[in-house]
Amino acid sequence: MRINPEQQAEIDSLRAEPRPSLRPSVAALEEILYQPLPVLDHGFVRVIDYMGDDAAVVQAARVSYGKGTKRVSEDRGLINYLIRHWHTTPFEMCEIKYHVKLPIFVARQWIRHRTANVNEYSARYSILDREFYIPEPEQLAVQSAQNRQGRGNVLAPDEARRVQDLLRADAEQVYGHYEDMLNEREDGSVIDPERDGLARELARMDLTLNFYTQWYWKTDLHNLMHFLNLRADAHAQFEIRAYADVMLDTLKRWVPITFDAFMNYRANGAQLSAAGLDVVRRMLAGETVEQAGSGLSAREWRELMATLGRD
Amino acid sequence: MRINPEQQAEIDSLRAEPRPSLRPSVAALEEILYQPLPVLDHGFVRVIDYMGDDAAVVQAARVSYGKGTKRVSEDRGLINYLIRHWHTTPFEMCEIKYHVKLPIFVARQWIRHRTANVNEYSARYSILDREFYIPEPEQLAVQSAQNRQGRGNVLAPDEARRVQDLLRADAEQVYGHYEDMLNEREDGSVIDPERDGLARELARMDLTLNFYTQWYWKTDLHNLMHFLNLRADAHAQFEIRAYADVMLDTLKRWVPITFDAFMNYRANGAQLSAAGLDVVRRMLAGETVEQAGSGLSAREWRELMATLGRD
Amino acid sequence: MRINPEQQAEIDSLRAEPRPSLRPSVAALEEILYQPLPVLDHGFVRVIDYMGDDAAVVQAARVSYGKGTKRVSEDRGLINYLIRHWHTTPFEMCEIKYHVKLPIFVARQWIRHRTANVNEYSARYSILDREFYIPEPEQLAVQSAQNRQGRGNVLAPDEARRVQDLLRADAEQVYGHYEDMLNEREDGSVIDPERDGLARELARMDLTLNFYTQWYWKTDLHNLMHFLNLRADAHAQFEIRAYADVMLDTLKRWVPITFDAFMNYRANGAQLSAAGLDVVRRMLAGETVEQAGSGLSAREWRELMATLGRD
Amino acid sequence: MRINPEQQAEIDSLRAEPRPSLRPSVAALEEILYQPLPVLDHGFVRVIDYMGDDAAVVQAARVSYGKGTKRVSEDRGLINYLIRHWHTTPFEMCEIKYHVKLPIFVARQWIRHRTANVNEYSARYSILDREFYIPEPEQLAVQSAQNRQGRGNVLAPDEARRVQDLLRADAEQVYGHYEDMLNEREDGSVIDPERDGLARELARMDLTLNFYTQWYWKTDLHNLMHFLNLRADAHAQFEIRAYADVMLDTLKRWVPITFDAFMNYRANGAQLSAAGLDVVRRMLAGETVEQAGSGLSAREWRELMATLGRD
Repeated sequence: MRINPEQQAEIDSLRAEPRPSLRPSVAALEEILYQPLPVLDHGFVRVIDYMGDDAAVVQAARVSYGKGTKRVSEDRGLINYLIRHWHTTPFEMCEIKYHVKLPIFVARQWIRHRTANVNEYSARYSILDREFYIPEPEQLAVQSAQNRQGRGNVLAPDEARRVQDLLRADAEQVYGHYEDMLNEREDGSVIDPERDGLARELARMDLTLNFYTQWYWKTDLHNLMHFLNLRADAHAQFEIRAYADVMLDTLKRWVPITFDAFMNYRANGAQLSAAGLDVVRRMLAGETVEQAGSGLSAREWRELMATLGRD
Repeated sequence: MRINPEQQAEIDSLRAEPRPSLRPSVAALEEILYQPLPVLDHGFVRVIDYMGDDAAVVQAARVSYGKGTKRVSEDRGLINYLIRHWHTTPFEMCEIKYHVKLPIFVARQWIRHRTANVNEYSARYSILDREFYIPEPEQLAVQSAQNRQGRGNVLAPDEARRVQDLLRADAEQVYGHYEDMLNEREDGSVIDPERDGLARELARMDLTLNFYTQWYWKTDLHNLMHFLNLRADAHAQFEIRAYADVMLDTLKRWVPITFDAFMNYRANGAQLSAAGLDVVRRMLAGETVEQAGSGLSAREWRELMATLGRD
Repeated sequence: MRINPEQQAEIDSLRAEPRPSLRPSVAALEEILYQPLPVLDHGFVRVIDYMGDDAAVVQAARVSYGKGTKRVSEDRGLINYLIRHWHTTPFEMCEIKYHVKLPIFVARQWIRHRTANVNEYSARYSILDREFYIPEPEQLAVQSAQNRQGRGNVLAPDEARRVQDLLRADAEQVYGHYEDMLNEREDGSVIDPERDGLARELARMDLTLNFYTQWYWKTDLHNLMHFLNLRADAHAQFEIRAYADVMLDTLKRWVPITFDAFMNYRANGAQLSAAGLDVVRRMLAGETVEQAGSGLSAREWRELMATLGRD
Repeated sequence: MRINPEQQAEIDSLRAEPRPSLRPSVAALEEILYQPLPVLDHGFVRVIDYMGDDAAVVQAARVSYGKGTKRVSEDRGLINYLIRHWHTTPFEMCEIKYHVKLPIFVARQWIRHRTANVNEYSARYSILDREFYIPEPEQLAVQSAQNRQGRGNVLAPDEARRVQDLLRADAEQVYGHYEDMLNEREDGSVIDPERDGLARELARMDLTLNFYTQWYWKTDLHNLMHFLNLRADAHAQFEIRAYADVMLDTLKRWVPITFDAFMNYRANGAQLSAAGLDVVRRMLAGETVEQAGSGLSAREWRELMATLGRD
């Protein structure tokens, strides 16, 4: 179960208490505050708190005494300018805090982003839930031939089912052994009162990497966009992209003007090398350019043609 | 003037708009939100925004779905435990944003704390105000003989007045030259329409280090306490301590339980070396210990005796 | 096998090529450079590179043109002073880079230290080795009753053997399934040429948390000491402490003066709270102080008495 | 004087002591190690130490036991790939340490780059030198009309001389007052033995922002390239660019393969927005595109045409 009734009651209780504040508030984000947004089979993303809004970016860029600018159109112009010219510090003035439930192997990719604050659920202190990730058949793909760290075609249905069964059986088995070694069940009840349980910090090592963990993760708007630019990207592993996609929607609710600028200048923009730029200039001048003689490797050429929509 | 009427009107306008939010809110901090808290002769500290409260520390430590614990006494016990055992990440889950007006030489000390976000008023883009810091006579002290980076006795009144006059005359003179080179006055009016003004990014180099600058400065609760522990300390230069002291009061308003723990375990606590600890143990065992034979240098011995209240 | 012959040959080849350099060099550290220092059953720590030495700390503190000071005794005095007074930046001027092989659950604790640079072996790109950690019987302890995140007494020998067998059998089984899903063996050979293998980024999720991973980990001297202060401590989990203990020895080889200061002022020193300090002062004044009336909780009292060697 | 004879003797002494080491060493960088590379009228950049080389980037990307790859061409291919796809962590495995002498207003821009280690010469502890920056006439430009934070045309020769004279006279005057307040000359001699000098931490506030300071500055290769990408850029203020240009040459000496990739993919590359990319695609398809209807603002259009070499 993604969220149990007791947890839902806690969330409802938090949502039942609006409080007056002089701070900027964002209605579209308040709508989903504290609510679990489902990801994968058992995971979620919850927005727990936030600081600032689009106007706060402007206010910081101007070091102003009040709101920043008077008009939304001015805010938009300034935010576009800031993103385009890599002025990152005004975006660091907004902050967001998430509660995330995610498979351990996803957590291990995620944690590489160091400019964030993290509190993870402690398996030294507490027992982990019997919850593990089993990919859907359409996610069970073969190793890619082109991209040595990606996926290719989807497995045949029978093979996909077999993989799912293997993963499920292994996870069930190790969780059973985990409880056995702890001498304690998921619900905290003791299995055999006559014997001692192994320390939690040790027993956890028998769990597989698809078990779910949880953490509070807080970052600023600049670093959030950096994270999303890498993790909502087609090169990211599907499982972390599933989280990034949901967070992209929270970005849109939170700071819609910054979101638009992010999509235009970062997510859907492109970086050209000096050699690539030279190819574009020659093509625009009417020259026929081939990979041979372009100064680009075969792979770079392919990437450039894809960027230019000529593949 | 610390704040002009137009700026005060902007602040009043922000304070006139309470908005409902589901986020935790702290009444004692809301009372002073946006208001300039005076520091030195022209400076101030304004709390611009904040995220979280004492309960948010507990909530993060527990990775909880709701508030964390039910009772304030439990929160206090857990927060004391966290601070005592250097569990820093739960305190990183709260964030605060200040607007600070401060002399440039203070800004240069402050900026060494790198785990914060900063947007400084740009003197490449804008003209700095005619505002500079002149120390009060009771702050004009001689170089300390013991502490090679501190102050000793206060100057004689005549000498203090002479120093103040020198500082003031120099600041007035360079500001006059600054306007002259810019060919523009503080209020933006042009001096001589027949000539061009020097670029702002160049003219500013003629200003002295006691001129005021401004910035937005945002940090998390853990790093704020680290900053205050170093800068509200007796070894810090008086001018930065003046800011830290005002911020210490905002800490108390914001997170009173964490504030108490900070004062007990950090600000008013002490660090003993292994050798110092050995001295204490021997003294408690009834032994008479002298510096010679203590394993401590003369200076360490003096510092230890001061810590133990035996000087 | 901790290191295979091919890897050892690569290491030997690196050690066979001394090169002249004008940079400071530390003979005691060069002795073990590149060599695997064994940790746990299959892990290791290798020092790959380093920058600076004790003199470089002094040199940075002085912002000097040459070496810093002329005499080792002056270096020692200054380094003691810097550590005692928490002047951390001069220690950030030295850097060290390790290659570490460690169980995944240890890697997950370690990575929380964010002020370091990390390159981890990619299981999206490569196949992990068939190597997993099985604790020795003397490490298989029960959950501690006092410390909710620690270990208590060691398991009875039979139970310990049973736990080892469970862990080993599970690890062997999931590794077999990992190869099966990949359709590829540890040595890269294909199992069944008629079928496709699952993508590596997916298959890895079936491995248990005691499998070994590897990374390059680089940090500065200040952050290394912070890491060691937390992880070579009795409260740290045994498995990460095993790594910290080996790294402590590399610290001693690298910067012996800083090492001494670290042991005296940090590792073997103690932090007293204001309330604890008050107790010490009253005891030194001859007063009999009890926990009741001390202002300390029962737990704090116990910790203080242990610090003072009175337990 | 940029470097006095005593300082030069210290540098010579460091350069006279080659030491054997098993670490990678870079001959082209060793050639200039410790030597002051002149910048502006009194400043310099000195490379003090470094860790790693191009091969170390490869080695870290592979988490290898030995050197990484066998052939330089493979190293180049991998480094190009890493830079192109924003794999930043392997570049964080190399580190460089500089000693820099620079005007205070330049130091204030520079310090915004927080992912570096800094030790600045302390004006609380020591007396600053009588050295200040006076721009050359060709650098004395008017405020730019287009770019609100940049420079336009150069001042007329007479006006340039007048500005230089003003700056020089002010700097000389405040330095005289600085010595007077300290009651101590630059060389440490006392002015009037009958009176006390003001504390150094106070007297320094009378100096203008063109006085030189010094620091040790250490960063990793990834962050160095980020710094150079922003500061060796045409939008950077000339005075900081002067430093970045000299450091760019040290980058070339240190890691020539990475340098080439940096120039191609970063320094001389370009970032296109989604809207800009759409314009390029339409132009390549033979369409005539005008700013009106391009989805770009006038300014963005101008920037895009400049990028495409069509201005």
